[in-house]
Formats: sequence, structure tokens, C-alpha cells
Amino acid sequence: MAIAGELRDRITQERLAPHTLMPSERELSESYGVSRMTARHALSLLENEGYVYRRPPRGTFVAEPRVAFRIGSFSDEITRVGRRPAAVVLWAEEREPTPSARAAFDLAPGETVHALHRLRTADDEPIALETTYFPSALTPGLLDQPLTGSLWELLRRHYRIVPTHARATIQSIVIDDASCTRLAVRTASRGILLTRHTFDDAGRCLEFARDVYRADRASFEVEAQIPVPL
Amino acid sequence: MAIAGELRDRITQERLAPHTLMPSERELSESYGVSRMTARHALSLLENEGYVYRRPPRGTFVAEPRVAFRIGSFSDEITRVGRRPAAVVLWAEEREPTPSARAAFDLAPGETVHALHRLRTADDEPIALETTYFPSALTPGLLDQPLTGSLWELLRRHYRIVPTHARATIQSIVIDDASCTRLAVRTASRGILLTRHTFDDAGRCLEFARDVYRADRASFEVEAQIPVPL
Repeated sequence: MAIAGELRDRITQERLAPHTLMPSERELSESYGVSRMTARHALSLLENEGYVYRRPPRGTFVAEPRVAFRIGSFSDEITRVGRRPAAVVLWAEEREPTPSARAAFDLAPGETVHALHRLRTADDEPIALETTYFPSALTPGLLDQPLTGSLWELLRRHYRIVPTHARATIQSIVIDDASCTRLAVRTASRGILLTRHTFDDAGRCLEFARDVYRADRASFEVEAQIPVPL
Repeated sequence: MAIAGELRDRITQERLAPHTLMPSERELSESYGVSRMTARHALSLLENEGYVYRRPPRGTFVAEPRVAFRIGSFSDEITRVGRRPAAVVLWAEEREPTPSARAAFDLAPGETVHALHRLRTADDEPIALETTYFPSALTPGLLDQPLTGSLWELLRRHYRIVPTHARATIQSIVIDDASCTRLAVRTASRGILLTRHTFDDAGRCLEFARDVYRADRASFEVEAQIPVPL
């Protein structure tokens, strides 16, 4: 839709400040010479895409931009955009691996994992819930370490384990009720589920994670090489 | 949630066939020794994540798995998973660039783009709607070419332009009404918006695309190198 595209571009290209008042349906219909219905559809599309939010009867406003995450350390990514990262540990324990974690780490029967569930924030605003698994054998004493910062930094500093690459799957989900509460969003809000395997330079899988991000606060930036057919 | 995690792992690790009947709430509550409420929550979580669907009163069933797309050619990705890709051209025209497209291609005033809107299908099932822009100067006569296959293949074969890498942003959106109809999903269904810049080996941007994928049919697999701090 042409009007929506133009408004979207104004928000992203001209970097309109968050909470700026957008033109009203009437103003849009006059300036673009379209019906009120068409103007309403345009604003509605932008709302669905998360670029604006509505506060009737005051109007429609520019939304806070999403953080454009690269696949990597939450702490590093939040710091890169000039905000202060933190983590709240919701639980941390040693336990039997889930089948996915067992497969990821190729564990023998009886081997356990360290499992952590953490709320990640940027300037105290909830952004993501991380569930992270490490093989216990690789990370002895992990649960006695400070767990409110970057876990990769802890791996490097304390265990001399260096994550070098990751493989992730990104999908769109509806966030479950308990997680909505923790993330301070309405029930049944949209989320992005990032399932990640992290490896060291020997190709050993050292971390398996299932992270749920608020869809209104996070997007993911990726780069890819394109194979050229013979 | 432990039960949900176990059921999710059974679906993904044991590759349960789509449309397999899942255990009922009562069966789950008996076999795991939990309340009916807990069992219901577990099934609900998996439904929100798209692993199962419900057909009361018959029960809960394993959903069709999502196609795990890598950032690349839709045609190649669909072929890779053993399905038949196709495209329906909804419109194709030469026109003024949107501000995003103008910025992507660094166009001078008056320069135009070729813009295409296509429905992409796998075995005739609608999966994505692509809006793709090319600089007209790079792709003379594009609109007279067959546009129902891989556009990258067309670029390579007819224009000797070779896409070598891409940068994409992935975000979760609500699909607009017209697009929901074309994608054969319910109004206000979730989608994944992939915004992509594609480059040749000289670093020239040759394509800008905004693609909307059905969230229930597509996930994205990405790989990333992890920068090691000094």
C-alpha cells in the first residue's frame, strides 16, 4: 500500500523520534487524496508491523524502534545500541538434559546439564527470556558464578571456552501467559523464538538456548552468502 | 514447562508425522502425574508455538512442520525440502522508487525501479508474498521476461548479474487483511517480514525486497560468526 510505504519510510529513513504524533486519518486522506478508509488501513498496517501505536482519542504515534539484534551476545548487542543490559536469574539448576539438549551436546546417559532461565532487560525494560543449557562437565561450578551478566564472557574468562560461531532458527510464536507477565506485555502477545546452538572453533557444541524475544522490541539482522549454481 | 518441552522434543526429534493425534489432556495428566490444567497449558504452549493444532472435540494433532528457510532463493529453498516452488505475479511495473528503494540503490532523481509483487507457493500452497525492487537501469526489459520462476536465476542468465550476498532483517508482524486473503490464512494471522538487500561481488545493491511469510509455514535458519573480544 503506497501511503503505508511512504509513512513507513518516513519513520525509518528520517528516523522520526519515538512518540511523535502521526498525521490523523483526516489529514492523510486530504494530503494523499484518498478515502478515510484507505488512510485508516494504512495506519492499521503500520500498527500491525509495529511502527506506530494508537492512543485514541489522542491519535497515532511513532513506536519505539525495535532493537536490531545480530545473532550474538545479548549484552553486547544492547550495549552496541547505547542501552544498559542486565539479567535477572529466574532459576538455575543442574539437571537431566531435555532430549534436545542431550542431542545437542551428544551426552552419555547420566550426564547432566546446567540450565538457566533469565529475564534480559535493556535500561530495566524487559526484552527477552532466555533458557540456556551447558554441559555440566564443561562448566563445573557454573551455578556458583555470578550469572547476571554475559554468560559468554563468563565462559571465556572463567572456563577458557571461546564461542566462535552459532547456528540459530528464528520463528514467530505467541508468548505463553507466564512469560507475557514477566516480559510486561499483554496476554497472547507475539514473540520471536530463537533456538540457538553455539560452537567453539573445534566444532564442539557448548551451549544450547531457547530465547523468547518481545516481537515489539526485537528484530534480527542477518547476513548470508548466496551459493552460485554451477 | 517440562511437559511441553518433552512433547516438543518428541515432535521435533522423533519427527512425529504431521496430523498424528497427540495424547489428550487426561492422558497427559495421568502419565505425567500433573493436573488437567497443567496438561492443558502444555498443549496450549505448543499450539502457540505452532507445533500442534487443535480440532475439538477430536483432539490435538501434530502440525505440518515449518519450512526452515535459509536466506536465499525461495525456489531453491523449497526445492531443497522436496516441494515444488512456483510464483503468481500479482503486479509488475516500472515506477518511481519508494524512499527505501531509492536509498538502497542510491538512485538519482528521475531514475526508476522495476517493482514486482508475487505470491510464492510450495506444491500450490501459499507460503509468502514478495515485493521485489530492481533498478530499471540494471534490468532493461525485465517486465517482458517470464517472472514466475527464480528472479535470481533470471538475473544470472539474462543479465549476467550474480547475487553473491544478502543482508536481511527479520521481524514478527501481523499480516494485513488483503495479504491474509492471498495467503489463505485467517484475518490478523502472524507473519514474518523479511526485508532484504542483495548485493553482487562488487558490493553493488541489485535488489531490495520486502517479503511476508506465513508464520505457521516458515522459520529462518541463520549462521553467525561470534566476534571474540580482545
